[in-house]
Amino acid sequence: IEEAKPGDTLIVEILDIRIPEIGVTAASPDSGALKGLVEISEIKTKFLKIRKGKVVYETSKGSKVEIPVKPFIGTIGVSPEIETISTTTPGRHGGNMDCPDICPGNKLYLPVFREGALFSLGNVHAVQGDGKICGTSLEVPAHIKLKFDLIRDKKVNWPRVESPEEIMTICSDKPLEDAAKLAFMELIKWMKSDYNFWEIDAYILLSLAAKLNIAQIVNPLYTVIAKISKQYLQ
Amino acid sequence: IEEAKPGDTLIVEILDIRIPEIGVTAASPDSGALKGLVEISEIKTKFLKIRKGKVVYETSKGSKVEIPVKPFIGTIGVSPEIETISTTTPGRHGGNMDCPDICPGNKLYLPVFREGALFSLGNVHAVQGDGKICGTSLEVPAHIKLKFDLIRDKKVNWPRVESPEEIMTICSDKPLEDAAKLAFMELIKWMKSDYNFWEIDAYILLSLAAKLNIAQIVNPLYTVIAKISKQYLQ
Repeated sequence: IEEAKPGDTLIVEILDIRIPEIGVTAASPDSGALKGLVEISEIKTKFLKIRKGKVVYETSKGSKVEIPVKPFIGTIGVSPEIETISTTTPGRHGGNMDCPDICPGNKLYLPVFREGALFSLGNVHAVQGDGKICGTSLEVPAHIKLKFDLIRDKKVNWPRVESPEEIMTICSDKPLEDAAKLAFMELIKWMKSDYNFWEIDAYILLSLAAKLNIAQIVNPLYTVIAKISKQYLQ
Repeated sequence: IEEAKPGDTLIVEILDIRIPEIGVTAASPDSGALKGLVEISEIKTKFLKIRKGKVVYETSKGSKVEIPVKPFIGTIGVSPEIETISTTTPGRHGGNMDCPDICPGNKLYLPVFREGALFSLGNVHAVQGDGKICGTSLEVPAHIKLKFDLIRDKKVNWPRVESPEEIMTICSDKPLEDAAKLAFMELIKWMKSDYNFWEIDAYILLSLAAKLNIAQIVNPLYTVIAKISKQYLQ
């Protein structure tokens, strides 16, 4: 991203994600949130058809149930400041957040740590359940259309997402409650800086009306998304 | 509950919850998920009006926003088998789960550990955000109408909830991801026993389509609710 400098915020608007008519998912004895708890003798791979916006899943009874697709970008981020981080790990730089809200119609805000930001993405999913517990969701190749913008000299601490209805903060840590606390603190900061809230008022309002989404508990750090509806921010 | 015996399951159907036109919430320096992180000099108590199904919250700007009420029972359970547990602690016996799905229209399943079950409840909330982060939600007195039933000689391991649309398991542990794992394992067991799923198929389906709700991260153990839509269980 030309002109991006450390201390800026990169805005990535997700305009479109096009996916094919088939996706793949798998469960393995060596990964997933329930490894050692669910009996898996060998890697089980399933190719699932996607038709008319639905994923077709065949149950053990042989009946077919349909899950509405909701394509999103699983791994998206910038270069961290000093360290080399594996693409499997989420963090302040973005990365493997597996956040279903990074989808068409929404804007992602990322802190810029390096000249040019060094943006990258991959790992698109057709649909994912909360927690992504078996370690995969429905993995697909994709054509993606993005629009970039910059906020100069103002850096967010962690990735943020804005949808037409909500503001959201995405934080990753371990244990999971630490990620949740970070996300709530970031949301309170956002409500203070941009929506004129006192800290304690934001805290109490979130205790009454926040939404908290578990993106995943299978990557090296766990990811949560704290959300508040814009209708409460007037 | 006459006739309830250890090894049975108690079914509690929530028929109605009537609440008054005012509720109370508070933030304290000594409790809440963000204690020590959010600046609170002394306990801050807020009385909020409830009118026409909405909680009226005044923002720091002085404008009033409305949060739709969703009354539910915060603490509900039976006697544990041997230990005396504080009502603030959730667990396999139920207790202070702060689960918004224990609301009118839904059925709660509880394991019976003692003769007569020794059922109790309290701690009704008019509305609560995910995580209940400041330690309180909108606390209200209430009139409650319940219907009890028993399943003989078949015990659930953890509290379960059934709504017209979903089946849900409620587990409490620390750290939070352990509660999530327990809840997912319980949900897989339920899908196996009652919906003819193979374990690994349930695991993969949940990775694509589960919902996971953080009830609270402020009680002595943390509570999550894992859910799957009944439309995927045909």
